[in-house]
Amino acid sequence: MLEHKVRIPACPAGGYTISIGTEILGLLWPKIEADFGGYNKFVVTDQSVVSSGHLHKLVGERDIPTFVINPPGETSKNISTVTSIIEAMENAYLGRDTLVVALGGGTVGDVAGFAAAVFKRGVRVVHIPTTTVAQADSSIGGKTGVDSTVSKNAFGAFWHPAAVFIDVATVSTLDERQFRAGLVESVKHAIIADSLYFDYLEDHLDAILARKPEVLEHVAHWNCKIKGSVVEADPGEQNKRRILNYGHTIGHAVEAASGFALLHGEAVAIGIIAAGLIEAEMGLSEAGRLERITRILEKLHVPVKLPPNVAERDLVDLIKRDKKAVNKWPRFVLIAKIGEVYRQGGQYAVEVAPEIVNEVLKRL
Amino acid sequence: MLEHKVRIPACPAGGYTISIGTEILGLLWPKIEADFGGYNKFVVTDQSVVSSGHLHKLVGERDIPTFVINPPGETSKNISTVTSIIEAMENAYLGRDTLVVALGGGTVGDVAGFAAAVFKRGVRVVHIPTTTVAQADSSIGGKTGVDSTVSKNAFGAFWHPAAVFIDVATVSTLDERQFRAGLVESVKHAIIADSLYFDYLEDHLDAILARKPEVLEHVAHWNCKIKGSVVEADPGEQNKRRILNYGHTIGHAVEAASGFALLHGEAVAIGIIAAGLIEAEMGLSEAGRLERITRILEKLHVPVKLPPNVAERDLVDLIKRDKKAVNKWPRFVLIAKIGEVYRQGGQYAVEVAPEIVNEVLKRL
Repeated sequence: MLEHKVRIPACPAGGYTISIGTEILGLLWPKIEADFGGYNKFVVTDQSVVSSGHLHKLVGERDIPTFVINPPGETSKNISTVTSIIEAMENAYLGRDTLVVALGGGTVGDVAGFAAAVFKRGVRVVHIPTTTVAQADSSIGGKTGVDSTVSKNAFGAFWHPAAVFIDVATVSTLDERQFRAGLVESVKHAIIADSLYFDYLEDHLDAILARKPEVLEHVAHWNCKIKGSVVEADPGEQNKRRILNYGHTIGHAVEAASGFALLHGEAVAIGIIAAGLIEAEMGLSEAGRLERITRILEKLHVPVKLPPNVAERDLVDLIKRDKKAVNKWPRFVLIAKIGEVYRQGGQYAVEVAPEIVNEVLKRL
Repeated sequence: MLEHKVRIPACPAGGYTISIGTEILGLLWPKIEADFGGYNKFVVTDQSVVSSGHLHKLVGERDIPTFVINPPGETSKNISTVTSIIEAMENAYLGRDTLVVALGGGTVGDVAGFAAAVFKRGVRVVHIPTTTVAQADSSIGGKTGVDSTVSKNAFGAFWHPAAVFIDVATVSTLDERQFRAGLVESVKHAIIADSLYFDYLEDHLDAILARKPEVLEHVAHWNCKIKGSVVEADPGEQNKRRILNYGHTIGHAVEAASGFALLHGEAVAIGIIAAGLIEAEMGLSEAGRLERITRILEKLHVPVKLPPNVAERDLVDLIKRDKKAVNKWPRFVLIAKIGEVYRQGGQYAVEVAPEIVNEVLKRL
């Protein structure tokens, strides 16, 4: 047998800048033109962003080819939306010299990011997140994806943005439920990485809920620092990056089992409580810790218990389909204390016996 | 405006081995098990590969989850096939610890490679190409993709294989037209990279067409060396890799305009002649060169002229949609002589005025 070895060279190190401000949306287009002059721009957004006036604030009277996802939200996060975006880009005769500008919440970022990752084998993307969840989480770190009929983010790619722009003023148009659910990812960041941040969130919750821009900028910056440093350490999710998955293993299953009646952040709140119950079962918790976490989530008015229409059996089946499952059972991220993830043999995602998970689901 | 910089570290250098032999298919599964023991295997193939007996030769009586693309060929190279594969993997409860084994021709490799690239943000893939075109070209180099309703490979990713196994005996079951069309990529490799290889192909064409294994192994090895070295130099197709696109800019358009009545290699043969005519128009050709290239293609019984049902206007529209287009007009790869690509200012893909292309299309 003849053998021929093909070497793949290392890819060069790179990076991107996250810019945070208040009422900056109207100033961004000239900056994007200056930074990405050689690219044809293509905007992806959704109907609620258009209705909120954000799209007009961004592009003004400029004639930019734009795809508006409709209906907005998780139901459009599928491959048929991606196909429509790809074909719209083709019909605008766009090539690899395209910059996709994703303006919107988590769904817009995930769908537009994935479309950019696969359009003609990959074009660049800039994220302008407009919701609390997207500003805290999904716009940073390069994860993109859409759901299949079987599970969430079954299709996806790691596709790092060329830049991220966060205008905290855009969240002023969010309804209260979306706004509050999106803050769960901020609580998660504090739980896994920084107890001072957890203290800050507890102390400033009223100002955050009143959407005070200076506090929201501070929160956004804290989120970017935490998520950014984790992504830098492990962009392809080999180990450390998994800590961002705290509360998500059961959270994703709860979200799917609710038929997406629960928002992502709401399902993750339940998942965070589940993680806390697993920690208690495994003797990893100190007195009062789960109560403290439960209290801040309750103040956000997000659910901390399974809704009655979600069946445990469905959950177990969905948990087995977890992306990070090894031999059809996922590993779990747990904490040693607030601000510090529990590690076992250097691993940040650890084995939890199915019996413990079953027991916790019963009590959830 | 606050700014936060996220650094993305360089990815490590890697590589993979292409193994070439005759009648090795039946020996491969134990080797794959040995090399990729920690992975759950999932086979993607197509109905004609099953009918030819290749799938049974590979897996024997083993119980491996398998997806059979049906009908085989370019008509199945679309996102709905990818969706079916992803959902079949989910229904087999596969996670990121999956190894996709792609057994088949160009379509199987492109579809399975793309499915592997996007399944749960990417799993590994091994290619076992069974056609002349896949052995010469599509299995090596990490390009994957599927067509949209508008153009070829509109969806895609660069996704390098974990290994490639070429059994030249598998092409014995190809029909004569497929077999001959697939050899066009070998002729292309010789034209762009190695005049000695071109001489070899001219001298051994009868033995190649008689499918003599020792000659086919030699051809496969030569193809791997040429394509491998180009891919190593430029895996992401920034510049040099574009030379592999010789004959493809017009070839892809011809293939699409024929409604895929022409095979890929047949359309590329016409594209190679078109490139030769452009070279003549631009004064890059020496006497007798285009005739020599035309002669070897004619001996392969592939078309060297546009079929009457292909309209020039459609071609121009399709050419504008080329993936590598800059401002909606592609650059062309041309040769200075057989075995050497023409360069302009260090660039391997050069500008050609639309008038010259229009003129050449009229004479094609």
